[in-house]
Amino acid sequence: MSSASSIRAPARLIATGLRSSTSRATIPPLPRLYPHQSRTILSFLRSETSKSKSVQLPSHFFSRALSGKPLPQVKSKALNYTYRLAAWVGASLTVVGVGVIGFFLYDASTYKDHSTHSDIDVSQLALQPRRGGPKNLPIADVFIDDDDSEAKRKLKQKPRLVILGGGWGGVALLKDLNPDEYHVTVISPTNYFLFTPMLPSATVGTLSLRSLVEPIRRILSRVNGHFIRAKAEDIEFSHKLIEVAQTDPEGREVRFYVPYDKVVLAVGSTTNPHGVKGLEHAFFLKNIDDARTIRNRVIHNLELACLPTTSDEERKRLLSFVVSGGGPTGVEFAAELYDLLNEDLSRHFPRLLRNEISVHIIQSRGHILNTYDETLSKYAEDRFARDQVDVMTNARVKEVQPEKIIFTQKEPDGSLQTKELPIGFCLWSTGVAPAAISKTLAEKLGEYQTNRHALETDTHLRVNGTPLGDVYAIGDCSTVQNNVADHIITFLRSTAWKRGHDPETVQLHFGDWRQVAQDVKKRFPQAADHLKRLDKLFSEFDKDHSGTLDFGELRELLKQIDNKLTSLPATAQRAHQQGQYLAKKFNKMAQVAEGLHANDIRDGDLDAATYKAFEYHHLGSLAYIGNSAVFDLGEGWNLAGGLWAVYTWRSVYFAQSVSLRTRLLMAMDWVKRGLFGRDLISF
Amino acid sequence: MSSASSIRAPARLIATGLRSSTSRATIPPLPRLYPHQSRTILSFLRSETSKSKSVQLPSHFFSRALSGKPLPQVKSKALNYTYRLAAWVGASLTVVGVGVIGFFLYDASTYKDHSTHSDIDVSQLALQPRRGGPKNLPIADVFIDDDDSEAKRKLKQKPRLVILGGGWGGVALLKDLNPDEYHVTVISPTNYFLFTPMLPSATVGTLSLRSLVEPIRRILSRVNGHFIRAKAEDIEFSHKLIEVAQTDPEGREVRFYVPYDKVVLAVGSTTNPHGVKGLEHAFFLKNIDDARTIRNRVIHNLELACLPTTSDEERKRLLSFVVSGGGPTGVEFAAELYDLLNEDLSRHFPRLLRNEISVHIIQSRGHILNTYDETLSKYAEDRFARDQVDVMTNARVKEVQPEKIIFTQKEPDGSLQTKELPIGFCLWSTGVAPAAISKTLAEKLGEYQTNRHALETDTHLRVNGTPLGDVYAIGDCSTVQNNVADHIITFLRSTAWKRGHDPETVQLHFGDWRQVAQDVKKRFPQAADHLKRLDKLFSEFDKDHSGTLDFGELRELLKQIDNKLTSLPATAQRAHQQGQYLAKKFNKMAQVAEGLHANDIRDGDLDAATYKAFEYHHLGSLAYIGNSAVFDLGEGWNLAGGLWAVYTWRSVYFAQSVSLRTRLLMAMDWVKRGLFGRDLISF
Repeated sequence: MSSASSIRAPARLIATGLRSSTSRATIPPLPRLYPHQSRTILSFLRSETSKSKSVQLPSHFFSRALSGKPLPQVKSKALNYTYRLAAWVGASLTVVGVGVIGFFLYDASTYKDHSTHSDIDVSQLALQPRRGGPKNLPIADVFIDDDDSEAKRKLKQKPRLVILGGGWGGVALLKDLNPDEYHVTVISPTNYFLFTPMLPSATVGTLSLRSLVEPIRRILSRVNGHFIRAKAEDIEFSHKLIEVAQTDPEGREVRFYVPYDKVVLAVGSTTNPHGVKGLEHAFFLKNIDDARTIRNRVIHNLELACLPTTSDEERKRLLSFVVSGGGPTGVEFAAELYDLLNEDLSRHFPRLLRNEISVHIIQSRGHILNTYDETLSKYAEDRFARDQVDVMTNARVKEVQPEKIIFTQKEPDGSLQTKELPIGFCLWSTGVAPAAISKTLAEKLGEYQTNRHALETDTHLRVNGTPLGDVYAIGDCSTVQNNVADHIITFLRSTAWKRGHDPETVQLHFGDWRQVAQDVKKRFPQAADHLKRLDKLFSEFDKDHSGTLDFGELRELLKQIDNKLTSLPATAQRAHQQGQYLAKKFNKMAQVAEGLHANDIRDGDLDAATYKAFEYHHLGSLAYIGNSAVFDLGEGWNLAGGLWAVYTWRSVYFAQSVSLRTRLLMAMDWVKRGLFGRDLISF
Repeated sequence: MSSASSIRAPARLIATGLRSSTSRATIPPLPRLYPHQSRTILSFLRSETSKSKSVQLPSHFFSRALSGKPLPQVKSKALNYTYRLAAWVGASLTVVGVGVIGFFLYDASTYKDHSTHSDIDVSQLALQPRRGGPKNLPIADVFIDDDDSEAKRKLKQKPRLVILGGGWGGVALLKDLNPDEYHVTVISPTNYFLFTPMLPSATVGTLSLRSLVEPIRRILSRVNGHFIRAKAEDIEFSHKLIEVAQTDPEGREVRFYVPYDKVVLAVGSTTNPHGVKGLEHAFFLKNIDDARTIRNRVIHNLELACLPTTSDEERKRLLSFVVSGGGPTGVEFAAELYDLLNEDLSRHFPRLLRNEISVHIIQSRGHILNTYDETLSKYAEDRFARDQVDVMTNARVKEVQPEKIIFTQKEPDGSLQTKELPIGFCLWSTGVAPAAISKTLAEKLGEYQTNRHALETDTHLRVNGTPLGDVYAIGDCSTVQNNVADHIITFLRSTAWKRGHDPETVQLHFGDWRQVAQDVKKRFPQAADHLKRLDKLFSEFDKDHSGTLDFGELRELLKQIDNKLTSLPATAQRAHQQGQYLAKKFNKMAQVAEGLHANDIRDGDLDAATYKAFEYHHLGSLAYIGNSAVFDLGEGWNLAGGLWAVYTWRSVYFAQSVSLRTRLLMAMDWVKRGLFGRDLISF
């Protein structure tokens, strides 16, 4: 009996192996076994088989596919592994496949078949705007899409917040603004936000231009805002009107006013010519068109260099790429260009070209990336030196000619040498200059605006000289004025007079000084770092050791702090923080507006009353320098390295990128580059 | 004892459930059980535990992860399913994850760190080409990259095959050409191949421009060929020199000769102005730049329509899009435009715009898509009618003005009506005209070239009037001449004279006629279809029922066949087939070259001797008409439908696409469109 069974058994075993998912066979699932241990297997099997009959239903068959029925045990290990591996791959393919099908179903749902025609009510005032203002132009009180949706209709009565420019500052503001407190309008000559830090990558096709831009309208939809693609040219502060201009394809210009309750200037800056001659022969890198023009020119030069008639000398000129300006933009462009030439050029172009290409950086300061920690500048310079990118420091460009660039360089011995380089291409990326409207407004505001480079604001980012709480400025077009000394002194003087003292005789004790310091910290957060050791400062400036500070000594103390305060960098980071700051403040002001209105409070420093002053927190700067990257995290924290740094650099920007869309596109581009390299196509 | 074990057992069970993959516990794998059925569980367990000890090795632990160890059996079905489901997802995530990591590793390997400088030998002749030819220009006998690689060096002695143009014809030739038989050079003003059928999609951002282009150099690398980015302007047939011109960024023009043994004209065509006035106000859709210009203009108009100062009438004009030409290009552009306006516009632009937009097609024939089967034209027209795309047939454009288009339309009663439409944008896509070089050559060849529209070739695609086997023409710039009658008659006449007969008296019996027919079929494959029922034809044209055909009757017969032969369509498909044909023929000729050379055979009709004449096989035509597509598969086989047709239409082009790269990019674009819609950005 026992022998017989021991023969029969294997046969069953194989059977289950083959038909495990279809036949419920005569084999019981493992665990059920144990409760019956005391019985012999045989009796157990009997009971089992009798059970099994009752449950053989189609539904059951089906369910078996996924059920936890143990997989058949095959003897050979190798077989097991392959079996399981196959199962894994199979499973993943299935899941992925399901995903794909899912996507296609979704995709199919995105094709609107019938046009959505419908009568819509547009206010007459939107179709025929009234004329008015100093220049008697049409005034856009109402927009044609003010009634497009319930949400928009609600906002018609809200204060009108107009943002000039769709760059980092403006977009940061839009992203954090409370959706239902303001009637938002963005006025910008371009209808997209540009992810500027990656612009150098786009010049050589590492990234496609499309991956760096996000339509402003898409960003605006969150706050149900409006967009006007035009150029703001002037602001009538007294009438609260923005003068806007646009030209149509036939070259006719239209002008009109856009009214505002609050206007935010975020118009950015233009490139600084530094009064150099012949810049019409140089290229700039500010917007998408620039990026394309540059790419086309680079590739055009490469193609020309291949022509049989091109002389050796001419070829060397065509392939001499000069970057004027050793800041992040210039350095990153040089790096990207080097990558292109090093990684992709040699693949499809004559090898001769690779040998005759030269990349030069002309930097006016002693180091490239001079705003970064010195160790990083050194790292970058060494890197470039190794990559045969020729860095020339202490050099100032005199003139750019069609085929050569002339510059003076300070020699180690201090003597000035005038030199020149043949150029096939020259990028001009040195510093920023104010945009047209910034200049116009600065003139208008006269003595309130003393800075040639940007619009001066107080620490609440309100443009100096404009009606309090109407006009704000953020980003490159603005600079925060830190005149601690003047501000405090005048303040104390007036209080002194009020109290009937003669300011000259007033003496501040340490207690008073601490109060003053508190006040300074509140009004000038940037100054806080320099007001840490109050007692030290006090004793240091109490020259006569009288135990008190007179106005003279106080002024000295504050002046010294002023000098320590540097103006904020013209970076995306700063613009971003200022935008966020305004968004938070405006949200707060909208909340308290009710109460203020009730108590009929209209004037006075509402900003200061409702929200703290702007404080800039430097999160560090980073730069790509050709298959390696450097990070300056401030306070002497630095990072520099090869590929790992590059991937980090990418992920930082990937995270900062404005939308899921741009992130996805960026990723796709990087994959593309990895698989196919950059395509050297010009169009 | 037995009771004791019955308590211990469940604990073990749970233990395995939890630690199944780490501890081998004391529970035997299921099947091993059965061989021992006759024994009691207890003895069995004992033996098992003793076994298990021997195999508890680290390596073993590890291997368990993948091994076929049965998964723990949990009681509840639901739990089982979730458990397995989780396992599946987990597995797929792992596999996908591994893939991602794999890619990153690969990607990291694609960054070349050190520049690959090396001395390379470039022949002096390449650097200073000799001058010569009728115009005494530099002659590019040797290229600077002739010695770049071993493969290239080998080709220096091979016959020089020069291809003018990098379109469908040229690329098809490159893809099928045997890599080591010819010294290949492509001369084209653009350094990329453009996937023209998808161009309309690119005008509205459904596809990105980059996805439609493939660098010619990449395609050339297969045949180790050379590329010259310049314009071929003339050919000196007697000197076997191509005159090439190019201008550099400073506007200086360089001219030189490129020598050839065989030259293939694949320069395509330009748009046909049909002598209409004011076409400078219209847009064309031939290349990438056109596509971008159109997209920017469309979006610019939309933005202008949003301006507060834009009057209602002006808005209607700005949003009136007129397409002149009801061929595939025109129709597909109208369709894509409609999609854009219908699917994406309403999402971010004022709703008012959607209601005031109008799309018009002006077609000179009675139907749009008139080259397609009539049922399909009807289908398209109905579709457009439903989508409020206004189709005007039997209408001819008289003049295009900046803001309106003037055309005449034939009314049902046959009377001509002059009408006009306001236009914000007008696309001109009506027929093709020869490119500059085609005209030049046609003039040069005088009476050999009688066709105003394209270069006439024989059925071996050799340009009529040029030295036999030197100059070929394919694609839009060429047309195959089918002058069966003249050809055969002259042939027979001469043979008749040779035989000493007077042609007029010669009589052909059915047998002779069959021979003639054979000859015709061989020389004019296109005619084969019309030579099926030889006997029928014979009796039909044997007017005098003499049982023989005299020359007069034969000429009539052949003339009738001539009339039946239509000229080939100016499509990508035709160009592609002709390119492939030449590639195959050139490969063949290279093979037999040896033998011919040995036997000193240099002249005579080598093409005809080595390869069959070109025969066009129409594979059908397809068109996208707005969330639906039509397929004309010839011989009355038609397809038309909605989304499924669109997906089919896409997959056809996906398959036809030139490279894995473009395929991947196309797919990405379609996914992008599904997820984020088309981005209405202009730059």
